[in-house]
Amino acid sequence: MKVLITGGAGFLGQRLARRLLEAGRLPGAQGPAQTIDEITLLDVAPAASGGDARVRSVVGDVSERRVLEDALDAQTHAVFHLAAIVSGQAEADFDLGMRINLDASRQLLEVCRMRGHRPRVVFTSSVAVYGGTLPGLVRDDTALDPRSSYGMQKAVAELLLADYTRRGFIDGRVLRLPTISVRPGRPNAAASSFASGIVREPLAGETAVLPVDPATRLWLLSPRAAIDALVHGYSLDPSRLGERPIVNLPGLSVSVAQMIDALREVAGDAVASRIVYRRDERIERIVASWPGRWDTTRAESLGFAGDRDFADVIRAYIENDAPRL
Amino acid sequence: MKVLITGGAGFLGQRLARRLLEAGRLPGAQGPAQTIDEITLLDVAPAASGGDARVRSVVGDVSERRVLEDALDAQTHAVFHLAAIVSGQAEADFDLGMRINLDASRQLLEVCRMRGHRPRVVFTSSVAVYGGTLPGLVRDDTALDPRSSYGMQKAVAELLLADYTRRGFIDGRVLRLPTISVRPGRPNAAASSFASGIVREPLAGETAVLPVDPATRLWLLSPRAAIDALVHGYSLDPSRLGERPIVNLPGLSVSVAQMIDALREVAGDAVASRIVYRRDERIERIVASWPGRWDTTRAESLGFAGDRDFADVIRAYIENDAPRL
Repeated sequence: MKVLITGGAGFLGQRLARRLLEAGRLPGAQGPAQTIDEITLLDVAPAASGGDARVRSVVGDVSERRVLEDALDAQTHAVFHLAAIVSGQAEADFDLGMRINLDASRQLLEVCRMRGHRPRVVFTSSVAVYGGTLPGLVRDDTALDPRSSYGMQKAVAELLLADYTRRGFIDGRVLRLPTISVRPGRPNAAASSFASGIVREPLAGETAVLPVDPATRLWLLSPRAAIDALVHGYSLDPSRLGERPIVNLPGLSVSVAQMIDALREVAGDAVASRIVYRRDERIERIVASWPGRWDTTRAESLGFAGDRDFADVIRAYIENDAPRL
Repeated sequence: MKVLITGGAGFLGQRLARRLLEAGRLPGAQGPAQTIDEITLLDVAPAASGGDARVRSVVGDVSERRVLEDALDAQTHAVFHLAAIVSGQAEADFDLGMRINLDASRQLLEVCRMRGHRPRVVFTSSVAVYGGTLPGLVRDDTALDPRSSYGMQKAVAELLLADYTRRGFIDGRVLRLPTISVRPGRPNAAASSFASGIVREPLAGETAVLPVDPATRLWLLSPRAAIDALVHGYSLDPSRLGERPIVNLPGLSVSVAQMIDALREVAGDAVASRIVYRRDERIERIVASWPGRWDTTRAESLGFAGDRDFADVIRAYIENDAPRL
């Protein structure tokens, strides 16, 4: 079988590819686990193959039909649709966000439909689909009320994917991811970029800017748990998802102040003191519209798991991801 | 000022045009009421003008950019976006529903944005955005979970309109309409077509087919109350809508059996006996996914009103709309 990962040169795409290549098989798609013959990594930039002959890098715009037709054929039984313009950038450049977060998702679903083989499609959505006046505990049946164009675009793609699934065009599932932390690498234009930056930069000896109130509560997932969730979400039989193929993934509900305490616990005062509070109202408004936690009963009953505590997440980051100083 | 009504040759579009032409002015758009100089009726078929020189009929596909650019300029301060493919047809022809219910809505919003004058846009949505396991009383913060492509497309257009409004591209408002009954004319491809047919056809001496269980509860609004709601919804200052420009309109919660009782009360046994129960699972599945009522607290606080009782609605239909026998 073939696998397609959109956003395959990105951080999650690369990790997912590595995990799948190591496993060599994917569980549960239309019967017993199948050998992975090829993983196509589609992105605007060439994706690293790690020297593995099974990896095919396709460079192109994910919103273009012919690019998707090149990336996905009737042997592509598994699609992980991770490509996205992050929240801050989608707010700054409306047209770009619409093109990648909305049009590309629709084109991808259309190409899947036209191929006619009903591939299994895993789509990553976000806390940003929620907003407005939220109940203390966001549940699966809490209304979406996005307060960012990114959140709107993710919510639209969710609705499309659910209807394409209901009609039998694809076998889709939406995983609503908590904010991923700690991401390695550099800051990006996500409104949530600081949620990794305030750990990553101080550990690297650099100053990190905290743009939101330390009392702000975030809903976090480590990269490792996120990859686990993508693979598990793929493996679920459609009958277990029922008529609503959208799952709010488990996360850690922590305040920014608790994140800083965890960093202090793991790495000491000197490191934690490299965080500078400099409020940015634009970022604060977007982040404050997201839920700080949600009900995970359904996700847990489906076998998804989150992280145990944030200090553990920091330790795992130091061990596996942090640049060696 | 100019007014655009998409779906202007349709039943609601024609009635709305007549009401606006009679009033001659529209209240509340960017200050005091303004004189209506022109009403553009955009539809796939020529719209009747009633001999009024202020009416301009534009014939074209509402999903085509150049058609919308012809229909809407920077003097068009009021847009009523009513054009839609009805539920049954959008389920039968997926591509057609996507083009008219989704693409056209987006193109319309884009043309409004490009004109740059922030027109006020009233969009009609539907009970069909809800579905799945619903609480006894659907509230404004109940999650959307459409179980038809029509409902999905309406939900997507709502999200788009809300974000275009949040960003200041338009001054939009979404009115979620109950099922309109009694519609004059002929049956259409809406799954809810029977909700008018079981009154209209028996009154005209014809047999009507009831495709759903008589215990099915519907959420109804008369054509007259619907037009009142469109005009009132247009007149509301954006400050009254706050950050969530979506309103669930008041309706009448009646079972199909109660509708038939009301018909018997108004028109007698002989008329009511012209209804034949012939179950259609396809229609029943769609209709059963819609809420039979919803919380109207917010709509009422905004000054919207529904009908008093269904027997009154039937009497008004007989007086104003039924063909003279």
